[in-house]
Amino acid sequence: MNPILKSAIMRDIGLVNSTLSNMIKPESKLSFDVYKQVVDSGKRLRPLIVFYSALSLGLSDKNSALRLGCIIELIHTASLLHDDIIDDANVRRGKASANVVFGVKPAVLGGDYLYSLAFNMVLSFDKEIARIISKAAYLLAEGEIKEIENSFRIDISVEDYYDVIYKKTAVLLEASGISGSILADADYQDNFMEYGKNIGFAFQIKDDCLDYESDMDTLGKNAGMDLKEGKVTLPVLYAAEQDKHLMDDVGEFFKSKNADLLHSITGRVKKLGLEASVEEAKKFSKKAKSSIIMLPDSRYKDYLLAIADYAVERTR
Amino acid sequence: MNPILKSAIMRDIGLVNSTLSNMIKPESKLSFDVYKQVVDSGKRLRPLIVFYSALSLGLSDKNSALRLGCIIELIHTASLLHDDIIDDANVRRGKASANVVFGVKPAVLGGDYLYSLAFNMVLSFDKEIARIISKAAYLLAEGEIKEIENSFRIDISVEDYYDVIYKKTAVLLEASGISGSILADADYQDNFMEYGKNIGFAFQIKDDCLDYESDMDTLGKNAGMDLKEGKVTLPVLYAAEQDKHLMDDVGEFFKSKNADLLHSITGRVKKLGLEASVEEAKKFSKKAKSSIIMLPDSRYKDYLLAIADYAVERTR
Repeated sequence: MNPILKSAIMRDIGLVNSTLSNMIKPESKLSFDVYKQVVDSGKRLRPLIVFYSALSLGLSDKNSALRLGCIIELIHTASLLHDDIIDDANVRRGKASANVVFGVKPAVLGGDYLYSLAFNMVLSFDKEIARIISKAAYLLAEGEIKEIENSFRIDISVEDYYDVIYKKTAVLLEASGISGSILADADYQDNFMEYGKNIGFAFQIKDDCLDYESDMDTLGKNAGMDLKEGKVTLPVLYAAEQDKHLMDDVGEFFKSKNADLLHSITGRVKKLGLEASVEEAKKFSKKAKSSIIMLPDSRYKDYLLAIADYAVERTR
Repeated sequence: MNPILKSAIMRDIGLVNSTLSNMIKPESKLSFDVYKQVVDSGKRLRPLIVFYSALSLGLSDKNSALRLGCIIELIHTASLLHDDIIDDANVRRGKASANVVFGVKPAVLGGDYLYSLAFNMVLSFDKEIARIISKAAYLLAEGEIKEIENSFRIDISVEDYYDVIYKKTAVLLEASGISGSILADADYQDNFMEYGKNIGFAFQIKDDCLDYESDMDTLGKNAGMDLKEGKVTLPVLYAAEQDKHLMDDVGEFFKSKNADLLHSITGRVKKLGLEASVEEAKKFSKKAKSSIIMLPDSRYKDYLLAIADYAVERTR
């Protein structure tokens, strides 16, 4: 990313972080620790999209856009807390995850606290915004349930894959775009819905590609983690179109957990499925950009375009 | 309970159950199974309080009161799902709990789905109602976090105990009373706040007493479960005022988990702490009743009074 844009966005991430800290005043030390564990890092994609969407449409009340963005980030943070429990994940962004450090109980309740606080705080905004955000939250849970139902299955279609990633990732980014734009000018909410949704697809597909490129040093987790968790993602589906034995081998790996077989599968996925998947992510990134091309020139528009590039160019 | 009142209330529980079933149309089979597991039983205290509070003040739109009551029940159900995970409970109301039957993952996500759906649905009501209910939900999570922080500690005061039970139980019943009354006539919300809150205290204290009287046959769980989970409740605190060695023995039990010691402790708690605790529960039940004494005579008022009696008279 252009270093001038990057430093401007980093400054706004600082604003988001201080707003977040001011929003949470847990009376309990335990819930604060759980919260800190997740909140100390993170890309802040959702609050930035709310903030820039609103400001690119000329909103002058920056604080309300920041606050709304942070409310959505609380929901995202809560879902990460619960997601970590769900995956028995030991590592989140290179750090031990909250449920390992503090136990399952505080991680579940810490998430519930953040969800409910967010739903309470969003009521200071328009009801329509509260409706969009709470709907996104239940679709998110639905997507994660569906992901579990699909796990360790080799008959997953590309449609199944898109249905899950729409709900588990794109929906909350879509809600970020829509609600940010409603704050400023409701006439453009369809454009920002498209922007957020396509950023979500681009981001998740890129994430699923990185899983086949990653190692402990760069991404803070091992390669092939998704397969270990039973997740059949786009690179696998694309590779399987050319390698007719791949899916049977994946099914065999789901049963045997054989490390050599995993090594063979990840090698074939890298060779046959990665490039087409990265191209697909780029298409979504382009769609995101073209959906806001009608905006007047401004630095906020530039930031939104830069985020769309970042979604697919990042290496972690 | 008077059999005529009882059969009328049972009929309304039937109404609540069919409203609940119509509200949830999960597209996923898994989330539906999780939901059914919890929702098939239950006292329906919260929806009944919403319903009767509104109707005792003359509300004619019964459906909206039913719907609001069921929304609060969804939040309660979600918290039970998460509470079961939290306690590693194998049994809930005599049945295997959802996280044992389906695994931790669906139980966490099933709860998240119900929470978010409830927050979405409550937006069809007045914003003030949504605000009260979402605040109750985050206080509930805070109370459960505090309960964990207090667990396996012998320096818990009666004030600590009341702080926890206010948040984990009374707050959502208080919200039921307030929001039900707002539907009909906001002038009486303080009365119904008092009603709900005091029902909550009565109910939870009675629950904590039942733990020392229960066996697998009547309550679906073993006696002394609370102590096994590290919970120091009112009967223990009252007994300890007369038995100066009790708390040290409780501390010793928390370390050793010695079954003979538990037997000795539960015996002393039954003898020295139960009666005073039951009396305390009855005081709250009376307070609940006197807070709605100004209502004009109606069968709904009778039901509310009957619920206050039931809270302390029940044997399970």
